[in-house]
Amino acid sequence: MADHLDRIRIVLTNPSHPGNIGSAARAMKVMGITKLYLVNPKEFPNDHADALASGAVDVLRHATVCGSLSEALQGVGFAAALSARRRELTLPAENLREAATQAMHLAAHNEIAFVFGNETFGLSNEEVMQCNLLIHVPTNPEYCSLNLAAAVQLVCYELRMAAGLTRFDDWPTPPTLATQEQIEGMLQHLEATLIEIGYLNPANPKRLMPRLRRLYKRATLEVDEIDMLRGILTKTLASKRSQ
Amino acid sequence: MADHLDRIRIVLTNPSHPGNIGSAARAMKVMGITKLYLVNPKEFPNDHADALASGAVDVLRHATVCGSLSEALQGVGFAAALSARRRELTLPAENLREAATQAMHLAAHNEIAFVFGNETFGLSNEEVMQCNLLIHVPTNPEYCSLNLAAAVQLVCYELRMAAGLTRFDDWPTPPTLATQEQIEGMLQHLEATLIEIGYLNPANPKRLMPRLRRLYKRATLEVDEIDMLRGILTKTLASKRSQ
Repeated sequence: MADHLDRIRIVLTNPSHPGNIGSAARAMKVMGITKLYLVNPKEFPNDHADALASGAVDVLRHATVCGSLSEALQGVGFAAALSARRRELTLPAENLREAATQAMHLAAHNEIAFVFGNETFGLSNEEVMQCNLLIHVPTNPEYCSLNLAAAVQLVCYELRMAAGLTRFDDWPTPPTLATQEQIEGMLQHLEATLIEIGYLNPANPKRLMPRLRRLYKRATLEVDEIDMLRGILTKTLASKRSQ
Repeated sequence: MADHLDRIRIVLTNPSHPGNIGSAARAMKVMGITKLYLVNPKEFPNDHADALASGAVDVLRHATVCGSLSEALQGVGFAAALSARRRELTLPAENLREAATQAMHLAAHNEIAFVFGNETFGLSNEEVMQCNLLIHVPTNPEYCSLNLAAAVQLVCYELRMAAGLTRFDDWPTPPTLATQEQIEGMLQHLEATLIEIGYLNPANPKRLMPRLRRLYKRATLEVDEIDMLRGILTKTLASKRSQ
Protein backbone atom coordinates (compact mmCIF):
# COMPACT_ATOMS: atom_id res chain seq x y z
CA MET A 1 0.00 0.00 0.00
CA ALA A 2 1.19 3.46 -0.81
CA ASP A 3 0.02 4.73 2.57
CA HIS A 4 2.29 2.27 4.46
CA LEU A 5 -0.39 1.40 7.02
CA ASP A 6 0.74 -2.20 6.37
CA ARG A 7 4.01 -1.36 8.14
CA ILE A 8 2.18 -0.73 11.42
CA ARG A 9 1.96 -3.37 14.16
CA ILE A 10 -0.48 -3.07 17.02
CA VAL A 11 1.05 -4.93 19.98
CA LEU A 12 -1.14 -5.80 22.98
CA THR A 13 0.91 -7.06 25.91
CA ASN A 14 -0.75 -9.33 28.48
CA PRO A 15 -4.34 -8.46 27.54
CA SER A 16 -6.72 -9.86 30.17
CA HIS A 17 -10.09 -9.51 28.47
CA PRO A 18 -10.72 -11.36 25.19
CA GLY A 19 -13.45 -8.82 24.38
CA ASN A 20 -10.86 -6.07 24.27
CA ILE A 21 -8.78 -8.10 21.79
CA GLY A 22 -11.82 -8.47 19.52
CA SER A 23 -12.79 -4.81 19.82
CA ALA A 24 -9.19 -3.79 19.14
CA ALA A 25 -9.16 -5.90 15.95
CA ARG A 26 -12.33 -4.15 14.75
CA ALA A 27 -10.91 -0.73 15.68
CA MET A 28 -7.77 -1.50 13.66
CA LYS A 29 -9.46 -2.83 10.53
CA VAL A 30 -11.88 0.11 10.35
CA MET A 31 -8.79 2.30 9.96
CA GLY A 32 -7.06 -0.06 7.51
CA ILE A 33 -4.49 -1.52 9.95
CA THR A 34 -4.39 -5.30 10.18
CA LYS A 35 -1.17 -6.52 11.84
CA LEU A 36 -2.03 -7.55 15.39
CA TYR A 37 0.58 -8.97 17.81
CA LEU A 38 -0.50 -10.47 21.13
CA VAL A 39 2.07 -10.96 23.88
CA ASN A 40 0.91 -13.61 26.38
CA PRO A 41 -2.84 -13.06 25.95
CA LYS A 42 -4.76 -14.54 28.87
CA GLU A 43 -7.36 -16.18 26.60
CA PHE A 44 -6.88 -16.47 22.87
CA PRO A 45 -8.43 -17.53 20.55
CA ASN A 46 -11.80 -16.92 22.15
CA ASP A 47 -15.44 -16.81 21.05
CA HIS A 48 -16.16 -13.50 22.78
CA ALA A 49 -13.19 -11.93 21.00
CA ASP A 50 -14.55 -13.21 17.68
CA ALA A 51 -18.00 -11.80 18.44
CA LEU A 52 -16.69 -8.32 19.24
CA ALA A 53 -14.34 -8.33 16.25
CA SER A 54 -17.46 -8.40 14.09
CA GLY A 55 -16.25 -8.20 10.47
CA ALA A 56 -12.60 -8.13 11.57
CA VAL A 57 -12.26 -11.79 12.59
CA ASP A 58 -9.62 -12.13 9.85
CA VAL A 59 -7.38 -9.78 11.87
CA LEU A 60 -7.67 -12.18 14.84
CA ARG A 61 -7.03 -15.23 12.65
CA HIS A 62 -3.81 -13.69 11.33
CA ALA A 63 -2.69 -12.33 14.71
CA THR A 64 0.83 -13.26 15.84
CA VAL A 65 0.95 -14.65 19.38
CA CYS A 66 4.31 -14.06 21.11
CA GLY A 67 5.91 -15.09 24.37
CA SER A 68 7.62 -11.76 24.97
CA LEU A 69 7.52 -8.15 23.86
CA SER A 70 10.98 -8.41 22.31
CA GLU A 71 9.67 -11.23 20.10
CA ALA A 72 6.79 -9.00 18.97
CA LEU A 73 9.24 -6.19 18.19
CA GLN A 74 11.56 -8.27 15.99
CA GLY A 75 12.28 -6.31 12.84
CA VAL A 76 10.75 -3.14 14.26
CA GLY A 77 12.64 0.14 13.80
CA PHE A 78 10.42 2.40 15.86
CA ALA A 79 8.22 1.41 18.79
CA ALA A 80 5.90 3.76 20.65
CA ALA A 81 4.46 2.86 24.07
CA LEU A 82 1.06 3.94 25.33
CA SER A 83 0.93 4.39 29.04
CA ALA A 84 -1.48 6.32 31.23
CA ARG A 85 0.50 5.45 34.31
CA ARG A 86 2.60 8.27 35.69
CA ARG A 87 6.19 7.18 35.95
CA GLU A 88 9.52 8.85 36.23
CA LEU A 89 10.00 9.78 32.63
CA THR A 90 12.01 6.93 31.25
CA LEU A 91 11.55 7.97 27.64
CA PRO A 92 10.68 11.19 25.85
CA ALA A 93 6.89 11.67 25.69
CA GLU A 94 5.03 13.02 22.71
CA ASN A 95 1.41 13.78 21.94
CA LEU A 96 -0.40 11.06 20.00
CA ARG A 97 -1.01 13.31 17.00
CA GLU A 98 2.67 14.20 16.57
CA ALA A 99 3.77 10.63 17.26
CA ALA A 100 1.39 9.29 14.59
CA THR A 101 2.74 11.76 12.04
CA GLN A 102 6.32 10.83 12.91
CA ALA A 103 5.45 7.13 12.69
CA MET A 104 3.86 7.44 9.25
CA HIS A 105 6.90 9.33 8.03
CA LEU A 106 9.22 6.58 9.29
CA ALA A 107 6.89 3.88 7.92
CA ALA A 108 8.12 4.61 4.41
CA HIS A 109 11.31 2.69 5.27
CA ASN A 110 10.70 0.98 8.61
CA GLU A 111 8.46 -1.37 10.53
CA ILE A 112 6.59 0.48 13.25
CA ALA A 113 4.93 -0.77 16.46
CA PHE A 114 2.46 0.77 18.88
CA VAL A 115 2.63 -1.06 22.20
CA PHE A 116 -0.28 -1.23 24.66
CA GLY A 117 -0.13 -2.56 28.20
CA ASN A 118 -2.41 -4.71 30.31
CA GLU A 119 -5.83 -3.21 31.12
CA THR A 120 -5.06 -2.84 34.81
CA PHE A 121 -1.29 -2.75 35.15
CA GLY A 122 -0.25 -1.05 31.93
CA LEU A 123 3.30 -1.59 30.76
CA SER A 124 6.21 -2.50 33.01
CA ASN A 125 9.24 -0.24 33.02
CA GLU A 126 11.16 -3.05 31.30
CA GLU A 127 8.58 -3.11 28.50
CA VAL A 128 8.60 0.66 28.13
CA MET A 129 12.38 0.60 27.88
CA GLN A 130 12.13 -1.60 24.79
CA CYS A 131 10.36 1.26 23.01
CA ASN A 132 11.63 4.54 21.59
CA LEU A 133 8.91 6.90 22.71
CA LEU A 134 6.12 7.29 25.25
CA ILE A 135 2.81 8.51 23.85
CA HIS A 136 0.59 10.93 25.67
CA VAL A 137 -3.15 10.93 24.93
CA PRO A 138 -4.81 14.07 26.29
CA THR A 139 -7.51 13.05 28.78
CA ASN A 140 -9.62 14.39 31.61
CA PRO A 141 -7.20 14.75 34.54
CA GLU A 142 -9.98 13.64 36.91
CA TYR A 143 -10.73 10.43 34.98
CA CYS A 144 -8.15 9.15 32.54
CA SER A 145 -9.22 5.50 32.37
CA LEU A 146 -9.14 5.02 28.61
CA ASN A 147 -10.41 1.59 27.58
CA LEU A 148 -7.80 -0.55 25.79
CA ALA A 149 -9.78 -0.93 22.55
CA ALA A 150 -10.70 2.76 22.67
CA ALA A 151 -6.99 3.62 22.91
CA VAL A 152 -6.29 1.36 19.92
CA GLN A 153 -9.11 3.15 18.05
CA LEU A 154 -7.59 6.58 18.73
CA VAL A 155 -4.10 5.47 17.68
CA CYS A 156 -5.30 3.84 14.45
CA TYR A 157 -7.46 6.85 13.62
CA GLU A 158 -4.54 9.25 14.07
CA LEU A 159 -2.33 6.97 11.94
CA ARG A 160 -4.92 6.93 9.15
CA MET A 161 -5.32 10.70 9.42
CA ALA A 162 -1.54 11.18 9.29
CA ALA A 163 -1.25 8.83 6.31
CA GLY A 164 -3.98 10.67 4.43
CA LEU A 165 -3.44 14.26 5.45
CA THR A 166 0.28 14.64 5.61
CA ARG A 167 2.21 15.13 2.40
CA PHE A 168 5.60 13.67 3.19
CA ASP A 169 7.07 14.68 -0.18
CA ASP A 170 8.58 17.80 1.32
CA TRP A 171 10.01 16.00 4.35
CA PRO A 172 13.58 14.75 4.40
CA THR A 173 13.94 11.12 3.35
CA PRO A 174 13.19 8.99 6.43
CA PRO A 175 16.20 7.14 7.83
CA THR A 176 16.44 3.35 7.87
CA LEU A 177 16.34 2.66 11.58
CA ALA A 178 18.11 -0.13 13.40
CA THR A 179 15.77 -2.91 14.46
CA GLN A 180 15.27 -3.72 18.11
CA GLU A 181 17.49 -6.83 17.68
CA GLN A 182 20.30 -4.76 16.21
CA ILE A 183 20.11 -2.37 19.14
CA GLU A 184 20.06 -5.27 21.61
CA GLY A 185 23.06 -6.78 19.85
CA MET A 186 24.95 -3.51 20.07
CA LEU A 187 24.04 -3.12 23.78
CA GLN A 188 25.34 -6.61 24.53
CA HIS A 189 28.50 -5.81 22.62
CA LEU A 190 28.80 -2.58 24.60
CA GLU A 191 28.23 -4.30 27.94
CA ALA A 192 30.84 -6.98 27.21
CA THR A 193 33.26 -4.31 26.15
CA LEU A 194 32.69 -2.20 29.25
CA ILE A 195 33.28 -5.24 31.43
CA GLU A 196 36.43 -6.16 29.58
CA ILE A 197 37.89 -2.69 29.83
CA GLY A 198 37.00 -2.63 33.52
CA TYR A 199 34.45 0.18 33.39
CA LEU A 200 31.52 -2.02 34.37
CA ASN A 201 31.81 -4.35 37.33
CA PRO A 202 29.41 -7.32 36.77
CA ALA A 203 29.30 -7.87 40.55
CA ASN A 204 28.14 -4.27 41.06
CA PRO A 205 26.70 -3.05 37.75
CA LYS A 206 24.68 -0.14 39.26
CA ARG A 207 22.28 1.47 36.76
CA LEU A 208 24.85 1.76 34.02
CA MET A 209 23.30 -0.45 31.33
CA PRO A 210 19.71 0.79 31.84
CA ARG A 211 20.95 4.35 31.46
CA LEU A 212 22.85 3.52 28.29
CA ARG A 213 19.84 1.65 26.93
CA ARG A 214 17.65 4.67 27.63
CA LEU A 215 20.07 6.93 25.79
CA TYR A 216 20.27 4.76 22.69
CA LYS A 217 16.55 3.98 22.58
CA ARG A 218 15.71 7.63 22.74
CA ALA A 219 18.10 8.31 19.90
CA THR A 220 16.17 6.04 17.45
CA LEU A 221 19.47 4.75 16.07
CA GLU A 222 19.97 4.20 12.38
CA VAL A 223 21.54 1.07 10.90
CA ASP A 224 24.69 2.94 9.88
CA GLU A 225 25.09 4.21 13.41
CA ILE A 226 24.86 0.70 14.85
CA ASP A 227 27.63 -0.37 12.46
CA MET A 228 29.68 2.60 13.53
CA LEU A 229 29.16 2.03 17.27
CA ARG A 230 30.01 -1.66 16.97
CA GLY A 231 33.07 -0.78 14.92
CA ILE A 232 34.23 1.42 17.78
CA LEU A 233 33.62 -1.39 20.29
CA THR A 234 35.49 -3.93 18.18
CA LYS A 235 38.39 -1.52 17.88
CA THR A 236 38.31 -0.81 21.61
CA LEU A 237 38.65 -4.51 22.45
CA ALA A 238 41.29 -5.13 19.78
CA SER A 239 43.46 -2.28 21.00
CA LYS A 240 43.12 -3.41 24.62
CA ARG A 241 44.02 -7.02 23.78
CA SER A 242 47.02 -5.95 21.72
CA GLN A 243 48.51 -4.11 24.67
CA MET B 1 -15.31 25.49 32.38
CA ALA B 2 -13.20 27.73 30.26
CA ASP B 3 -12.89 25.05 27.60
CA HIS B 4 -16.68 24.86 27.06
CA LEU B 5 -16.72 21.06 26.91
CA ASP B 6 -19.73 21.39 29.24
CA ARG B 7 -21.68 22.85 26.28
CA ILE B 8 -21.38 19.57 24.35
CA ARG B 9 -24.18 16.98 24.28
CA ILE B 10 -23.61 13.46 23.07
CA VAL B 11 -26.95 12.21 21.71
CA LEU B 12 -27.43 8.49 21.06
CA THR B 13 -30.63 7.79 19.12
CA ASN B 14 -32.26 4.37 19.47
CA PRO B 15 -29.21 2.58 20.88
CA SER B 16 -29.83 -1.19 20.89
CA HIS B 17 -26.98 -2.47 23.06
CA PRO B 18 -26.74 -1.28 26.68
CA GLY B 19 -23.02 -2.12 26.62
CA ASN B 20 -22.50 0.54 23.97
CA ILE B 21 -24.23 3.13 26.16
CA GLY B 22 -21.91 2.28 29.04
CA SER B 23 -18.80 2.30 26.86
CA ALA B 24 -19.88 5.61 25.34
CA ALA B 25 -20.25 7.14 28.81
CA ARG B 26 -16.70 6.05 29.69
CA ALA B 27 -15.38 7.34 26.34
CA MET B 28 -17.02 10.72 27.04
CA LYS B 29 -15.83 11.17 30.61
CA VAL B 30 -12.24 10.26 29.75
CA MET B 31 -12.29 13.30 27.46
CA GLY B 32 -14.09 15.54 29.97
CA ILE B 33 -17.54 15.48 28.32
CA THR B 34 -20.43 14.45 30.55
CA LYS B 35 -23.80 15.41 29.02
CA LEU B 36 -25.37 12.25 27.62
CA TYR B 37 -28.80 12.24 25.92
CA LEU B 38 -30.50 8.96 25.06
CA VAL B 39 -33.37 8.95 22.57
CA ASN B 40 -35.55 5.85 23.01
CA PRO B 41 -32.83 3.53 24.32
CA LYS B 42 -33.87 -0.12 24.03
CA GLU B 43 -32.70 -0.94 27.57
CA PHE B 44 -31.82 1.71 30.11
CA PRO B 45 -30.82 1.81 32.90
CA ASN B 46 -29.02 -1.50 32.67
CA ASP B 47 -26.42 -3.42 34.70
CA HIS B 48 -24.26 -4.22 31.67
CA ALA B 49 -24.17 -0.53 30.78
CA ASP B 50 -23.08 0.29 34.33
CA ALA B 51 -20.34 -2.36 34.20
CA LEU B 52 -18.88 -1.04 30.95
CA ALA B 53 -19.13 2.58 32.09
CA SER B 54 -16.57 1.68 34.78
CA GLY B 55 -15.78 4.93 36.61
CA ALA B 56 -18.27 6.88 34.48
CA VAL B 57 -21.49 5.56 36.01
CA ASP B 58 -22.26 9.14 37.09
CA VAL B 59 -22.59 10.07 33.39
CA LEU B 60 -25.25 7.35 33.03
CA ARG B 61 -27.04 8.46 36.23
CA HIS B 62 -27.29 12.03 34.94
CA ALA B 63 -28.21 11.02 31.37
CA THR B 64 -31.34 12.61 29.89
CA VAL B 65 -33.73 10.09 28.36
CA CYS B 66 -35.88 11.56 25.58
CA GLY B 67 -38.76 10.38 23.43
CA SER B 68 -37.57 12.08 20.27
CA LEU B 69 -34.48 13.64 18.75
CA SER B 70 -36.10 17.07 18.67
CA GLU B 71 -36.57 16.83 22.44
CA ALA B 72 -32.85 16.03 22.85
CA LEU B 73 -31.95 19.01 20.65
CA GLN B 74 -33.97 21.58 22.59
CA GLY B 75 -31.82 24.63 23.18
CA VAL B 76 -29.14 23.38 20.79
CA GLY B 77 -27.68 25.86 18.30
CA PHE B 78 -25.51 23.51 16.29
CA ALA B 79 -26.05 19.78 15.78
CA ALA B 80 -23.69 17.49 13.87
CA ALA B 81 -24.79 14.04 12.69
CA LEU B 82 -22.51 11.03 12.41
CA SER B 83 -23.49 8.68 9.68
CA ALA B 84 -21.49 6.00 7.90
CA ARG B 85 -24.42 5.24 5.63
CA ARG B 86 -24.07 6.60 2.12
CA ARG B 87 -27.03 8.76 1.32
CA GLU B 88 -27.86 11.43 -1.18
CA LEU B 89 -26.13 14.33 0.45
CA THR B 90 -28.86 15.94 2.46
CA LEU B 91 -26.52 18.20 4.38
CA PRO B 92 -23.03 19.51 3.86
CA ALA B 93 -20.42 16.98 5.05
CA GLU B 94 -17.26 17.86 6.88
CA ASN B 95 -14.32 15.91 8.26
CA LEU B 96 -14.52 15.15 11.97
CA ARG B 97 -11.42 17.21 12.78
CA GLU B 98 -12.72 20.38 11.13
CA ALA B 99 -16.21 19.84 12.56
CA ALA B 100 -14.82 19.47 16.08
CA THR B 101 -12.86 22.71 15.71
CA GLN B 102 -15.94 24.53 14.40
CA ALA B 103 -18.04 23.11 17.24
CA MET B 104 -15.61 24.24 19.95
CA HIS B 105 -15.54 27.71 18.44
CA LEU B 106 -19.35 27.91 18.49
CA ALA B 107 -19.45 26.39 22.00
CA ALA B 108 -18.34 29.72 23.45
CA HIS B 109 -21.90 31.01 22.89
CA ASN B 110 -24.02 28.00 21.97
CA GLU B 111 -25.15 24.54 23.02
CA ILE B 112 -23.72 21.91 20.70
CA ALA B 113 -24.87 18.34 19.95
CA PHE B 114 -23.22 15.38 18.28
CA VAL B 115 -25.88 12.92 17.15
CA PHE B 116 -25.23 9.19 16.68
CA GLY B 117 -27.62 6.69 15.08
CA ASN B 118 -28.64 3.15 15.90
CA GLU B 119 -25.86 0.53 15.66
CA THR B 120 -27.43 -1.18 12.66
CA PHE B 121 -29.66 1.36 10.98
CA GLY B 122 -27.83 4.59 11.68
CA LEU B 123 -29.83 7.79 11.48
CA SER B 124 -33.01 8.24 9.46
CA ASN B 125 -33.13 11.01 6.89
CA GLU B 126 -35.64 12.80 9.12
CA GLU B 127 -33.16 12.70 12.01
CA VAL B 128 -30.29 13.89 9.83
CA MET B 129 -32.43 16.79 8.63
CA GLN B 130 -32.74 18.05 12.20
CA CYS B 131 -28.98 18.60 12.23
CA ASN B 132 -26.79 21.25 10.61
CA LEU B 133 -23.93 19.16 9.36
CA LEU B 134 -22.98 15.60 8.45
CA ILE B 135 -19.66 14.40 9.82
CA HIS B 136 -17.30 12.21 7.89
CA VAL B 137 -14.86 9.98 9.77
CA PRO B 138 -12.14 8.68 7.45
CA THR B 139 -12.24 4.87 7.45
CA ASN B 140 -11.10 1.86 5.46
CA PRO B 141 -13.32 1.83 2.37
CA GLU B 142 -13.41 -1.98 2.53
CA TYR B 143 -14.58 -2.09 6.16
CA CYS B 144 -16.10 1.03 7.65
CA SER B 145 -18.05 -0.56 10.51
CA LEU B 146 -17.04 1.77 13.31
CA ASN B 147 -18.41 0.66 16.67
CA LEU B 148 -20.81 3.16 18.28
CA ALA B 149 -18.74 3.72 21.44
CA ALA B 150 -15.56 3.89 19.34
CA ALA B 151 -17.18 6.65 17.25
CA VAL B 152 -18.10 8.51 20.45
CA GLN B 153 -14.49 8.10 21.60
CA LEU B 154 -13.13 9.63 18.40
CA VAL B 155 -15.56 12.56 18.50
CA CYS B 156 -14.86 13.35 22.17
CA TYR B 157 -11.10 13.06 21.60
CA GLU B 158 -11.23 15.50 18.68
CA LEU B 159 -13.36 17.89 20.74
CA ARG B 160 -10.87 17.79 23.59
CA MET B 161 -7.99 18.27 21.15
CA ALA B 162 -9.80 21.22 19.53
CA ALA B 163 -10.55 22.75 22.94
CA GLY B 164 -6.96 22.43 24.03
CA LEU B 165 -5.04 23.07 20.84
CA THR B 166 -6.97 25.79 19.11
CA ARG B 167 -6.56 29.34 20.29
CA PHE B 168 -9.85 30.97 19.40
CA ASP B 169 -8.71 34.43 20.50
CA ASP B 170 -7.86 35.36 16.94
CA TRP B 171 -11.12 34.03 15.51
CA PRO B 172 -14.12 36.29 14.94
CA THR B 173 -16.58 36.31 17.84
CA PRO B 174 -18.82 33.25 17.38
CA PRO B 175 -22.43 34.09 16.49
CA THR B 176 -25.34 33.29 18.79
CA LEU B 177 -27.16 30.67 16.76
CA ALA B 178 -30.88 30.11 16.66
CA THR B 179 -31.97 27.04 18.60
CA GLN B 180 -33.64 24.13 16.83
CA GLU B 181 -37.01 25.25 18.27
CA GLN B 182 -36.57 28.76 16.90
CA ILE B 183 -35.83 27.35 13.46
CA GLU B 184 -38.84 25.04 13.66
CA GLY B 185 -41.02 27.98 14.70
CA MET B 186 -39.77 30.01 11.77
CA LEU B 187 -40.36 27.11 9.37
CA GLN B 188 -43.93 26.70 10.60
CA HIS B 189 -44.46 30.42 10.21
CA LEU B 190 -43.00 30.19 6.71
CA GLU B 191 -45.17 27.23 5.75
CA ALA B 192 -48.35 28.93 6.98
CA THR B 193 -47.38 32.04 5.09
CA LEU B 194 -46.68 30.16 1.87
CA ILE B 195 -50.05 28.46 2.14
CA GLU B 196 -51.85 31.71 2.77
CA ILE B 197 -50.24 33.48 -0.15
CA GLY B 198 -51.08 30.49 -2.35
CA TYR B 199 -47.51 29.41 -3.11
CA LEU B 200 -47.81 26.10 -1.26
CA ASN B 201 -50.79 23.85 -1.89
CA PRO B 202 -51.36 21.73 1.26
CA ALA B 203 -53.12 19.11 -0.89
CA ASN B 204 -50.04 18.81 -3.09
CA PRO B 205 -47.05 20.18 -1.11
CA LYS B 206 -44.39 18.46 -3.23
CA ARG B 207 -40.87 18.70 -1.67
CA LEU B 208 -41.11 22.40 -0.96
CA MET B 209 -40.82 22.42 2.84
CA PRO B 210 -38.07 19.76 3.05
CA ARG B 211 -36.05 21.78 0.55
CA LEU B 212 -36.54 25.00 2.52
CA ARG B 213 -35.68 23.20 5.76
CA ARG B 214 -32.47 21.89 4.18
CA LEU B 215 -31.52 25.39 3.09
CA TYR B 216 -32.07 26.98 6.48
CA LYS B 217 -30.46 24.14 8.43
CA ARG B 218 -27.37 24.32 6.30
CA ALA B 219 -27.19 28.07 6.87
CA THR B 220 -26.83 27.66 10.70
CA LEU B 221 -29.11 30.63 11.24
CA GLU B 222 -28.45 33.19 13.91
CA VAL B 223 -31.06 34.51 16.31
CA ASP B 224 -31.13 37.91 14.62
CA GLU B 225 -31.76 36.28 11.29
CA ILE B 226 -34.71 34.33 12.64
CA ASP B 227 -36.19 37.59 13.90
CA MET B 228 -35.61 39.15 10.51
CA LEU B 229 -37.13 36.25 8.57
CA ARG B 230 -40.17 36.15 10.81
CA GLY B 231 -40.52 39.91 10.48
CA ILE B 232 -40.65 39.47 6.72
CA LEU B 233 -43.28 36.74 7.04
CA THR B 234 -45.42 38.83 9.39
CA LYS B 235 -45.17 41.74 6.99
CA THR B 236 -46.02 39.49 4.04
CA LEU B 237 -49.22 38.30 5.71
CA ALA B 238 -50.19 41.77 6.93
CA SER B 239 -49.80 43.29 3.49
CA LYS B 240 -51.80 40.49 1.89
CA ARG B 241 -54.63 40.79 4.42
CA SER B 242 -54.80 44.55 4.02
CA GLN B 243 -55.39 44.23 0.30
